[in-house]
Order: sequence, then C-alpha cells, then structure tokens
Amino acid sequence: MRLAVRFATTLLRGASQVYLQNHPATGALFLLAIAWAAASGHDLDIIIGAVVGLAVGTVTAILLDVEVGSVGQGLYGFNALLTGIALPTFLPNTAHLWILLVAGTAVTAIITLAIGNIAQEWGVPPLTSPFVLTTWLLLLAAYQFRNAHAASLGPPRLPSPIDAHAAHANLTPGSFCAAVLRGVAQVSLLDNWGSGLFILAGLAVSSAWAAVYALGGSLVATLYALWVGADAGLTTKGLYAFSAVLTAVALGTVFYPVTGRTAVYALLGTLFAVVVQAALDTALSPVGVATLTAPFVVATWLFLIPARDHAPIIGHTRLRDRLLSPHDGPPPES
Amino acid sequence: MRLAVRFATTLLRGASQVYLQNHPATGALFLLAIAWAAASGHDLDIIIGAVVGLAVGTVTAILLDVEVGSVGQGLYGFNALLTGIALPTFLPNTAHLWILLVAGTAVTAIITLAIGNIAQEWGVPPLTSPFVLTTWLLLLAAYQFRNAHAASLGPPRLPSPIDAHAAHANLTPGSFCAAVLRGVAQVSLLDNWGSGLFILAGLAVSSAWAAVYALGGSLVATLYALWVGADAGLTTKGLYAFSAVLTAVALGTVFYPVTGRTAVYALLGTLFAVVVQAALDTALSPVGVATLTAPFVVATWLFLIPARDHAPIIGHTRLRDRLLSPHDGPPPES
Amino acid sequence: MRLAVRFATTLLRGASQVYLQNHPATGALFLLAIAWAAASGHDLDIIIGAVVGLAVGTVTAILLDVEVGSVGQGLYGFNALLTGIALPTFLPNTAHLWILLVAGTAVTAIITLAIGNIAQEWGVPPLTSPFVLTTWLLLLAAYQFRNAHAASLGPPRLPSPIDAHAAHANLTPGSFCAAVLRGVAQVSLLDNWGSGLFILAGLAVSSAWAAVYALGGSLVATLYALWVGADAGLTTKGLYAFSAVLTAVALGTVFYPVTGRTAVYALLGTLFAVVVQAALDTALSPVGVATLTAPFVVATWLFLIPARDHAPIIGHTRLRDRLLSPHDGPPPES
Repeated sequence: MRLAVRFATTLLRGASQVYLQNHPATGALFLLAIAWAAASGHDLDIIIGAVVGLAVGTVTAILLDVEVGSVGQGLYGFNALLTGIALPTFLPNTAHLWILLVAGTAVTAIITLAIGNIAQEWGVPPLTSPFVLTTWLLLLAAYQFRNAHAASLGPPRLPSPIDAHAAHANLTPGSFCAAVLRGVAQVSLLDNWGSGLFILAGLAVSSAWAAVYALGGSLVATLYALWVGADAGLTTKGLYAFSAVLTAVALGTVFYPVTGRTAVYALLGTLFAVVVQAALDTALSPVGVATLTAPFVVATWLFLIPARDHAPIIGHTRLRDRLLSPHDGPPPES
Repeated sequence: MRLAVRFATTLLRGASQVYLQNHPATGALFLLAIAWAAASGHDLDIIIGAVVGLAVGTVTAILLDVEVGSVGQGLYGFNALLTGIALPTFLPNTAHLWILLVAGTAVTAIITLAIGNIAQEWGVPPLTSPFVLTTWLLLLAAYQFRNAHAASLGPPRLPSPIDAHAAHANLTPGSFCAAVLRGVAQVSLLDNWGSGLFILAGLAVSSAWAAVYALGGSLVATLYALWVGADAGLTTKGLYAFSAVLTAVALGTVFYPVTGRTAVYALLGTLFAVVVQAALDTALSPVGVATLTAPFVVATWLFLIPARDHAPIIGHTRLRDRLLSPHDGPPPES
Repeated sequence: MRLAVRFATTLLRGASQVYLQNHPATGALFLLAIAWAAASGHDLDIIIGAVVGLAVGTVTAILLDVEVGSVGQGLYGFNALLTGIALPTFLPNTAHLWILLVAGTAVTAIITLAIGNIAQEWGVPPLTSPFVLTTWLLLLAAYQFRNAHAASLGPPRLPSPIDAHAAHANLTPGSFCAAVLRGVAQVSLLDNWGSGLFILAGLAVSSAWAAVYALGGSLVATLYALWVGADAGLTTKGLYAFSAVLTAVALGTVFYPVTGRTAVYALLGTLFAVVVQAALDTALSPVGVATLTAPFVVATWLFLIPARDHAPIIGHTRLRDRLLSPHDGPPPES
C-alpha cells in the first residue's frame, strides 16, 4: 500500500516535471489539463497515452536500477509522458500505435539516461530532448511503415517565404487571450485554452513565479510573432509560444535566481526561442515532422551552458573588479 | 619479415573489427566474403577499395604516431575499409574516384581519432561513425563535382508515406532465408547472401555468441520490417536488417555480458535500430544519400551511454536495495 | 580616455580574430577591407553591421562578467562581427533587420560562451561556429517572418548533379588571380578581390606565415575546385576557397607549429575543407541557406581534436619508439 502511494506520487511528480516543477499536486492539475483537452476534443487516446507513457518510463528506469532519488523526482516520467501524448496526436489509432507507444516510451527513458550523461558534462539537464529525439525518430519512421499510416503527418515540402495573406492576423481581445493561454497548453501538445488555465493553476501551486513567467513568456512570444508577421494561424494556436513558455520558466525561475538581471537575460532567451521556433519550422519542412519542444531545448541549453562564466571562477578577473581595483593591471598580452 | 607479418595481422584484425571482433582469422573470412560478392557481381573495385582503405587507414594512424596498441587491434583500419567499399559502390570508376578513395580513407583515420576523443568522454567507442561521416561528406560533395559523376546516387526527393504496393512482400522460405543472410552481409554493403555465410563463419571463429546474435538480429529485424509493412524490396535486400545485426552483436555480446537480462535490452535496441533505419531513410531522402550504418551508431550509442547507470555507482541507491533494506528510508524530498 | 583606447583596441583585436590573429593593426586593415567592399558595392550596411556587431558582442561579454583576459583578446567580438556582416548581406534593410542584428549579435556572444564550454572539453576553440549557428537560425527564421522578407535567400531546392555547362570554367590569368584573392575576402562574405589584398596585408602584419598559408590555401582550393569540375561561377567568386583559407591558416600556422610535417597535414585538411564545402552546399540546398564558414569549422575541428594523439601521451607507445627500442615488446593481445 505504502509502495502504491509512493509510486503514484512519483508519477504525479513526473507529470509536474513537464513544466520543470517537482510537486504532486501540480502534476495532478497537469494531468487534469490533458484530460480536459482529451474530453473537449473527443480524443481520449492522448490522456491514455500520457498515463501509459508516464508509467512505462518510470518503470523502465526502476528496472534499469537507476538511482532511486532521481526516479522519485519523476525525472524518467515526463519525457515519456510527452512521447505518449505525441504519438496518438500524429499517428492514427491502430494496434501498432500502442506497441510503438509502449516500446517508444521505454526507449525514451533509456535516451533520458543517455542524454543526461552527455549533458551533465555541459552542466545542464536533458530537459525535453529525449522526448523530442524519440518522437522525431518514430514519426520519421512512420513514413516508411505501412502499418503506421503516416498520411496524417506533414506533408513534406520545400520551405518558401511566408506570403502577406498567411501573415495577416485578425484578432479580438478574446481571441488574443485564448492564443496566449493556448501557448501555455501547447507545451503538452494541447490545442485548448482551458487546459492552459489548469496548467497555470498547477504552476501557481508549485511556484508563483513559474506561473508568472509562463504567462509572461507566452504573452511576449505571441506579441513578437504578431509584430514580426509570422503565420497568423500558427500564432493563434499558440504554436509560436509554447517553447518560449518553457524557456521563460527555465531561465527566469528554475535555473537562475529570480532577479531583474536574470529577467532581462530570460527575456532575450524567450525572444530567441521564437526565432529558433521559426528556424526549425523551416529546417524540418522538407522531412515533414513538427518541431515539438526542440526550440525550447536549443534556446535554453545555449543560454544555460554559459552559466559557469556568469559567476566568478578561479583565476577569473571581471572588468568591474579590475575597474574597482586600486592597482590597474597591465593590458592583455598581444 | 616479422614486421610484414605483424602488419598483415593488424590488417586482418582491422577487417574483423567491422563486426566488432579482434581476430585475424575472422578478418580473413570477412575479406573472403567481400571477394565473393565482388566476384559474383563482377565488380572487383569493392575488394580493391576495401584492401586499399584498410591499409591506408592503418598506415595513416602509424604516420600520425597513434598509440601502437590500438593500431595493432585494427581500430584505425575498419572504418577506412568500409569507406573503401562505399565509394566504388556509389561512385563510378574514374581516376578521381581512386584519389578520393586514398585521401578519403586517410581522412577516415583522422576522423576516427577525433570522434574517438569525443566519444571517450561519453564512455563509448566511435563504432562506425567515422566511416559514416566521411562517406556522407564525400557522397554529398559528389553532387557538386562534375568529375565524380553523382548520377548514380539518389535521386534526392521529398519523403512520402509508403504505398500498399511497395509494402507488399511475396516471400518463399528460401527468399526469406536469403534476405536474413543478406542482412548480415549488407553491414559491409554486400548484396549477397553467400557473403553472409562467410561472415557468420568468421564470427563463429571469434565468438559463437556473436554469430548467434548477428543471425538473430537479422531475423528479428527482417520479421519486424515485414510485419510493420516496410518497403518489401528493401527488406528482401537486407537493408532493414544490417544495422540491427551490428546493434544486436554490440549490445548483446560485446559491450554487455551475455545474460538473459541483457538479451532483453539488446532485443529492444535491435528493434529500435530498425525504427532508426526507417527514420533516417526519411530524413536523408531530400539530400539523396544512403543511411550507411548510421542507424547502428545511433541506436548503439543511445543504449550504451546509460551503461554507467546500470551498475551501482557511488552514492547510488537502487529501489531493490531500499526495498530489501531493514530500515525503510524517507521518501524523496519534495 | 584610457578606457576608450583600451575598448577600441579590444574591438580591433576582435576584428583580427576573424582570421585567427590577435593584433590591432591587423584588425584595422580587416575593417578597411570591409569598408572597401562596402564602398565598391555601394552597400554601407555591411560595414555598419560589422562595427555594430563587434561592439555589441564585446559589450555583451562585459555585461555578462566574462573573464576579462579573453574579452581583451577580442574573442567575443569576431563572431558577432561576422553575424553583423551576414544579416545585411542576406536580408533587406528594414527596421526589423537592425533589431535582429543587435539582438542577434548579443546572442552570438552568449552562444560563443556556450560552444566555448563544450568545445573546451574536446581541446579546441569554438572558431566561427557561434556565427554560423546564430546566422543559420536567423536566416532560416526569416522564411517565416513577413517583416524579414526572406525572398533574397535561397530558393530552397532539391540537389541535383552538376551539369557540364555549370562546371565549364573560362578563366584568364587575371580572372584566376582575382578568384584566388576573392577566396581570401569571402571569409568575411566580401565578393571583392581588392578586399583580399587588404586582408593579406593585415595578415602579414601579424604573421608572415599566416599570409602565406591564406594565399596558398585559396590557391590550392581554387585549383582543386577547377580540376574536379565544381560550379565555375561559385569558384570564380571564391566560394570554394574561403573555408579552405581559414583551415590552412588554422592548421598550418595557428594550432600546429609551422613544419613540413604539419604542412602536409594542413594540405590534406585544406582539400578536405573543399569537399566539406561541396557536401554542405548539397545538404543545405533543401532549406535554402548558405554554408557560411561551417566547412572551415567542421574540417578544422576534425583535424584538431586528434592533436592530443599526435604527441606522446602517458602510457603511449609509438611504433617508431618500439622499432628503435632494444627490447622488442610482445605483439598486441588477441
């Protein structure tokens, strides 16, 4: 009984890690957000896939004898949860889908270990890269597998500059707010503004700042996408905002302390995530798969890996130290 | 004289490393497999290219003063050997081909050192990635070089979902067995089931388990490709099996001990290699080059890099230890 | 005042780092080369972009409290300088361009820190990879942003083998020399042989060998491209030579000592850079962006990372040591 409770808690923590939190109640609200979108869209596969993925990923880590502390924080569940939502979203409901889903979420946990070991040397966590890599491979493979019916993907096409018509947005205050909330929900591939509200509530339970930065990240990204003339249909669906949401939460509240200085840094990173979103939309167009949360991973890694240079290190002389120093040192050697 | 014998032994060990072995007789049987395919196909270029590549790669490592122990195990020969087979396979026989082949196999040895240094930090060997990277670059470049006549490559095209006709397989027991044996031979780009027999014999000389896993890997991959409705022409040629063959040998017999537990892990990795094969077929379609053994490298690296987490490490508490412990520890911190 | 002089010196050193030098006068001549091309082409944006990028990149590093020694050597300026030239070269002059340019050159400095931390583990510097990555992302994104007008890019197309007409070169001695000098200038995206002369003069101020290797690298690459039948229009514009120029300087004079042995190694690396140039032209064709200096980065990293194996390391027995040793060691274990 105690074991069952502890396992359920681990799963809920895993769900909360999708937005970089570690709190069972937050995870419960996130699962509710997925269930809400599933019920609204008459598509129960995504909540079943999410729970199956969460459980399979966590059990795989236990079977592999992974260190129990990190398992208990849900670190092997959240990527598998996302894989479990993505596969029913992009592939039709067949027996093969569910075999791919179980095997694929187990592989997601293995890839979490692999990327975790590599990223550890750079001083950063794997974030959602195991979900992105596994899902990309499974979706790309679906083009070659008759039983996976890839017709719902893509279609692959060469990129072309956006035309004025596609960039034209016709938003009301209501549809703008819905777009911002959809941006929060699209992190979990949910095209539903109500789910965005559940998720913000879940974030607020764990960390008020996380909720503020998630909403702020979505707002900034949506405004930037509108101003720059990105595809209005994508912007309205929150598809320019979701990676920016995670980037804002990660850089502004989780990995750096909440200060004015890091707020500016996180703002630059959030805008950069929108650029990376557009860039990967172009780059993946010929192979016909979605970016998933890859823009978040790229932007956040690039803004996190320099972290060790931000703080004084051994033998590290910062300009401000030198200017304040009574003895002005020699100029750099030529 | 002694030096000549030692050099010849090094070359034979290098040939055996293509299938992750380290045994001169195995290497001799592998070279025989290549010669057999060359004679059957009236295409002597591939055996000449293989031997030239093997020698150039090994001599390059010696000239670069690489540590003699690893040179003696053939570790700088096998990738160059594969490059030496691939170039005459994909490019027509011109003077420029042989210049590219000599320079390219020397570069393969240099890239073996480069990737070896990077992969060492992840606790894994470079596998066949130096061959894959060098050959990709040379084949992609051939599109831009009039003297390299790239018309035999590709053609580049946007991926599209496989149709029912292409996925329809019409196999007899005989053609099924030939497909499985071709899978073993296609590791070395040989479309010849007889070569597969030579290679299995060579593996058996070095390690009976390696031969069993190679055959089993090809069998599992071929069955999975048929079941999932992959392109029947490719499956019959062994092109869905060859990366799975190497993955099965690597995970099941070389880098993990042969146990029931690792057999399950290797089985999952082998099936994953088939998925990666299909995924890279899609991803490389627009640029018109073959996957080579990249699916093996990707699948095996991703399943090997977590190795350090499989065994108890310092400060590592596994779930089973905790459950068996008389004092039940506290739950993970929130 | 002293601070202003020191800042200006840092900027000039940054400009000189584009060709891997560290000398203010060299940097001044490089800026003159850019100004010359800007004046010749009636396109002042590129010199403004270069200076803005150089300043923004350096100031960003100072604001991030990066170690002052590396800032003073200009290591956070040169990639941003190149981003500052590339954006006005590929995108039209709008308000959004200059916002992207300021934000993008700040991000270039952050990415310099990120890649610097990763590449440090491989024992190599980031070279121009931060410029390449940032600019690729911004150019790919421009396809999706109406306000960035990406029509001047690409167009994206599937690669096809070069035809005899495109490969046919009709050069005079004068146009050949101009092509070689353009190769030197195209490192900074300058299609101007006069700029090549300024750059060679700047290199000679810092290092005579660097000037010799830059000219030699461009000569070798241009001859190889002509012989192999590459696109004559690209070769005449120096577009097969610029990455080879940097590779020759880096391998032949900066990171290895100038010896006959390293000259041969640098020659192989220089030819390899031409192959990588052609390969990336093919690979990037479907997504419609230029290679920038990525061929230099790939070729130079692959030829630099093995450096630790070239010198005797602990427990490292080289073949020549063994042959000269009075006691011949045992053969390698099977």
